[in-house]
Amino acid sequence: MSDRNSVAPRAAADVRAYDIETDVLVVGYGCAGSAAAFEAAAGGAQVLVLDRMSGPGGASALSGGEIYLGGGTPIQRACGFDDDPAAMAAFLSAALGPGADPDKITRYCEDSVAHFHWLADRGVPFNPTLWDAPAWVPPTDDGLMWLGENSAPFAELAAPAPRGHRPAAADFGGKLLMDRLAGAARSAGATMLSDTRATCLIVAGDGTVVGAVARRYGAELTVRARRGVVLTTGGFVDNDAMLAAHAPKLLGHTKVSAGTDDGSGIRMAQALGAAVRHMATGQVGISLVPGLAARGMVVNGNGQRFINEDTYPGRIGQAALFRQDMRTWVVLDERAFEEVPEPQRWGVRPTHVAETAEELADLMDLPATALADTIRRYNSFASRGVDPEFGKAPRWLRPLAPPLAAIDVRAGVRPPSESGDRRGTGASVFTLGGLHTSLDGAVLDIDGAPIPGLFAAGRAASNLHGEGYISGTSLGDGTFFGRRAGAAAARTD
Amino acid sequence: MSDRNSVAPRAAADVRAYDIETDVLVVGYGCAGSAAAFEAAAGGAQVLVLDRMSGPGGASALSGGEIYLGGGTPIQRACGFDDDPAAMAAFLSAALGPGADPDKITRYCEDSVAHFHWLADRGVPFNPTLWDAPAWVPPTDDGLMWLGENSAPFAELAAPAPRGHRPAAADFGGKLLMDRLAGAARSAGATMLSDTRATCLIVAGDGTVVGAVARRYGAELTVRARRGVVLTTGGFVDNDAMLAAHAPKLLGHTKVSAGTDDGSGIRMAQALGAAVRHMATGQVGISLVPGLAARGMVVNGNGQRFINEDTYPGRIGQAALFRQDMRTWVVLDERAFEEVPEPQRWGVRPTHVAETAEELADLMDLPATALADTIRRYNSFASRGVDPEFGKAPRWLRPLAPPLAAIDVRAGVRPPSESGDRRGTGASVFTLGGLHTSLDGAVLDIDGAPIPGLFAAGRAASNLHGEGYISGTSLGDGTFFGRRAGAAAARTD
Repeated sequence: MSDRNSVAPRAAADVRAYDIETDVLVVGYGCAGSAAAFEAAAGGAQVLVLDRMSGPGGASALSGGEIYLGGGTPIQRACGFDDDPAAMAAFLSAALGPGADPDKITRYCEDSVAHFHWLADRGVPFNPTLWDAPAWVPPTDDGLMWLGENSAPFAELAAPAPRGHRPAAADFGGKLLMDRLAGAARSAGATMLSDTRATCLIVAGDGTVVGAVARRYGAELTVRARRGVVLTTGGFVDNDAMLAAHAPKLLGHTKVSAGTDDGSGIRMAQALGAAVRHMATGQVGISLVPGLAARGMVVNGNGQRFINEDTYPGRIGQAALFRQDMRTWVVLDERAFEEVPEPQRWGVRPTHVAETAEELADLMDLPATALADTIRRYNSFASRGVDPEFGKAPRWLRPLAPPLAAIDVRAGVRPPSESGDRRGTGASVFTLGGLHTSLDGAVLDIDGAPIPGLFAAGRAASNLHGEGYISGTSLGDGTFFGRRAGAAAARTD
Repeated sequence: MSDRNSVAPRAAADVRAYDIETDVLVVGYGCAGSAAAFEAAAGGAQVLVLDRMSGPGGASALSGGEIYLGGGTPIQRACGFDDDPAAMAAFLSAALGPGADPDKITRYCEDSVAHFHWLADRGVPFNPTLWDAPAWVPPTDDGLMWLGENSAPFAELAAPAPRGHRPAAADFGGKLLMDRLAGAARSAGATMLSDTRATCLIVAGDGTVVGAVARRYGAELTVRARRGVVLTTGGFVDNDAMLAAHAPKLLGHTKVSAGTDDGSGIRMAQALGAAVRHMATGQVGISLVPGLAARGMVVNGNGQRFINEDTYPGRIGQAALFRQDMRTWVVLDERAFEEVPEPQRWGVRPTHVAETAEELADLMDLPATALADTIRRYNSFASRGVDPEFGKAPRWLRPLAPPLAAIDVRAGVRPPSESGDRRGTGASVFTLGGLHTSLDGAVLDIDGAPIPGLFAAGRAASNLHGEGYISGTSLGDGTFFGRRAGAAAARTD
């Protein structure tokens, strides 16, 4: 094709010779690709991993490294928490829905302790200590954190247990995690071709995927995969045309990626008739300090609260973007501000300060009496230690005392886990939708039948997520279903 | 294939003989199919229309019949309104976004007066009189109605003009519209095969669509289409698996369709690698009487207002479903109730009545002081004739006097335009996402290139709509782009 961006499949009959042959070809070397490569190699297959970058990592290496695990892991038990797969599944079904896949959630939760051990056996370290407050990325090396399990509305839906598992790292955990996973894949025998970008799949006359075409330093390479191709190419937040078509609310915000989440794997498979799921959904990292929000109020453009502020901050982000058009402020007082140690505030400062609620609302350009009513009501029930409106836990309820301050989340501070410009729209996003896959990572066509020879995992696939999101479920389902996809590809013959 | 629901394409080489041959095959005989059939026949093509039902109609015939037209139609001018395509496009871009296709909106608006005349020439009558209040379906035969153009936030974005054009009918307009459109197609020479369900497309070796396989009374029929196939099969609200995959928030609500919107055309094209857009989006008919809502307040589960109540009621519906999880009440007083004539209330009655706001909130199981604050603030600014919070127009602002009443929209009354059980979830929905098409209705593949011989229009395609919706844009874009698709198919050779 003359179109450099075309993903139209190449007929195997049109491939005169293959430049490379392998059993299993993995496209993309993030967490899902490395897990798939490891299991495929461990399953006895010859494995080649392509990545368009100069080494493994992808978006996974830039992340905080949290992995959502539970059901009674050693870390949970060491921290004094009982957990079981049913409670974990009940939480994930609610938190990742509507539209979450019940079969995948069940399998993920039932095998979660085993997956913890697999990660630990690959050298991923977790400290048996808990960080006990809402956070994006705790400032400690605690190995366990809450991700909304103990706050409304989930605390009443399922027995709460903290399930955010964090690799013990001096810096952020994603880099460490990827070092260990890529190291494991390498040790198992997987080889890598870097700086190599897959452009389309190669398909036999009977519809079986038998390889991929790639470009490396401007030259075309054809790769034959005798047993299967595993697409672990990431999401599509870097592809604005795809965002416009599927998830327009995500356009214009900071993109959380390594810059290569252009949806190429999703598109290559769709060109063969693959089905996709939940393409409109996304994670929304909102530019607020969870500890400040929990100690204050979060209000919208009408001066109304809209969520319990002690929840997982990504829930606040999704609510802010999808329900409030990002018009979102944290309202707090001096004590709340001072209670959060300065290093954990990432330089966030109030954008507005005033002696009264009405003055504050004026400065914020909000309806004055509405915000004043909200603050008055909040202070009234906070003094009684209850939140009848949004169910914030008593621990975080305290009347706010003047002077009052507000922080416009669009002023632009982002968690330190994200690099780049710290001014923005208040939101940092990535996509959750992707290819429809089986429990074993087989890419399914529009009829729901597997496309022979084609597998996918990670953000190129839609696995655990419906429209909701919880930190740790990306690396979690990427590694979990990546392993299953790699193992299944190795078994193919 | 043994799978009765398979949409996998059939290779032309595997078709021994065709049962029927035509130039243009139109699949689905609703508004888009009839418009396509008319133009294809008028363009000199032999045209066959398949429908799985016993005659033309589809969801179009069950609708209220509104068609969104403007830019200065004779009806608008007779009612004293200036309008121009730019104002119309500015409104639609805002109301149908985010993610609306600017090129399609521009073309639709520029050609809207011509499209009005085309409809009038086909015998669709419009009275030159205006219904001047928010409504789903006015109780009169007025030919023009507002659809949010004159209320916040759109009134300030674009010069307001009413653009909802209504066929003059004793009953609802959709039936009349379809009678005229199907009659026009028939007169132009299109023939119909009823009780015939297309099951898959027939594809030549070079990827050109050359026909379709269908089933009629249990027997398979093969249809050759020398110039092209036009898919006008409707949306997918009747396909729960597709809703779960793409639009899970629409699951469980009343489906607005003729029962045949199972996404078959979308799936048949996707199986060839066609692209889709905006599959998560839907229209939400909320079970409220617009005249009552406009005269009162609409509140959510926290006793907060969340939208100006004088807007197009479908905007209230989308906000209620996508942002408030359908926890929605109309709060009003006796005068507001009595001001809406009984026949226009469709039997709606208050679900709760109380002397004070606090008592009302208790009955509604809402936070008492929150609702009381909302009502107190509303009454305060309504007495001054302004709505600083949501911008409702002064015409609809008046303090509410006790006794106060609330109507839970989930109590289940639906507009009289919809048949069936009148108890429900408070929402009646249909899907807006579909196949990615060109301005001429060509179905585009994942690369954005036309699939030769394949066209689509109506709710099987994604045309004007991003994530927003306005009444009349379904019949509007169905007929407008249906015509273009039919004409383009007839030109193909």
